[in-house]
Amino acid sequence: MALIDNLIQALQVLPGVGPKSAQRMALALLQRNRSGGIALGNVLLQAMEAVRRCTVCQNLTESEVCRVCSDPRRDASLLCVVESPADVLAIEQAGGFRGFYFVLHGRLSPIDGIGPEQLGLDQLQARIQQMQPEELILATNPTVEGEATAHFISRMVAGEVAKVSRIAHGVPLGGEIEYTDGGTLTHALQGRRNVSLLD
Amino acid sequence: MALIDNLIQALQVLPGVGPKSAQRMALALLQRNRSGGIALGNVLLQAMEAVRRCTVCQNLTESEVCRVCSDPRRDASLLCVVESPADVLAIEQAGGFRGFYFVLHGRLSPIDGIGPEQLGLDQLQARIQQMQPEELILATNPTVEGEATAHFISRMVAGEVAKVSRIAHGVPLGGEIEYTDGGTLTHALQGRRNVSLLD
Repeated sequence: MALIDNLIQALQVLPGVGPKSAQRMALALLQRNRSGGIALGNVLLQAMEAVRRCTVCQNLTESEVCRVCSDPRRDASLLCVVESPADVLAIEQAGGFRGFYFVLHGRLSPIDGIGPEQLGLDQLQARIQQMQPEELILATNPTVEGEATAHFISRMVAGEVAKVSRIAHGVPLGGEIEYTDGGTLTHALQGRRNVSLLD
Repeated sequence: MALIDNLIQALQVLPGVGPKSAQRMALALLQRNRSGGIALGNVLLQAMEAVRRCTVCQNLTESEVCRVCSDPRRDASLLCVVESPADVLAIEQAGGFRGFYFVLHGRLSPIDGIGPEQLGLDQLQARIQQMQPEELILATNPTVEGEATAHFISRMVAGEVAKVSRIAHGVPLGGEIEYTDGGTLTHALQGRRNVSLLD
């Protein structure tokens, strides 16, 4: 069963998959879904080979320019800066945002040696000069490093973009105030909005 | 991102993987482990193509005869009947058993149309006649269908094998009697062993 052992081993490159679940996956494919396994093998090889970064926004794509950046119906007045491709997927799946993105692939982290150059912030600046958005939305994570990254970018683009905004932090929908941590509650209170302004 | 979408879709053939974890897996491979993804793709294609059933025991293997069946150091007096390849892996990983296996790939289930022919019980009978084991160990699961399968086989081979045994059911190691279900406790009491016999 050397080949099966190899398959069980190889499946463990997937995040969250240990020896036991890898074994279950390997046997499930071999016993019940060979065609699904072949399809997965083929698309894995294709994707690992062909997926690269969009030359405009740095998001992952198989083309020179990604689907969002090449969509003429998007709103060119809005540019949203995120840390990772997963953030783009999450915002797109939520719907509602029609602007463009810029993917940093990380956050400022001096301890890990990630400075402005490593994050490609000069590319962000070039993109802003070319696109001239009315608003730059900083949608980095609400962590210390994410906040520092947002702060750095906001100072970097001062004078180039009329409006620089930060996504709101507060109590998530379906969450309970009782169980929300203090930092989030402080943000939720500071970011309170006049009821008449709500749509 | 059509190719990435395809990858996220394809990963969901794996048991226990839904849209969210498939997305996390796809991005993790694309961002951090392309070589692991390529290795996984290649071994998936190889395994789906090459793995078949051992002609002796019906376990999954890439050769004509599997590793266990072609090992001359195994004990030819013991034949252990299990429901699935996963059971063989579990028993092998536990160590201690040095006999041979026969994999049913299922259990008797008249409701699902699985009778003695579908389980390949004639192949089991042929294997017993050829191998002439001293003991046949019935290691089907302790479910209604697994018990029925064990019962059916024990009657089928009566007179052909000197000793037919069933694996013990009882309180698992590390388990607590307080939280063990009644059926298991009944088996544990019925299957009690004289302390002087324990090794």
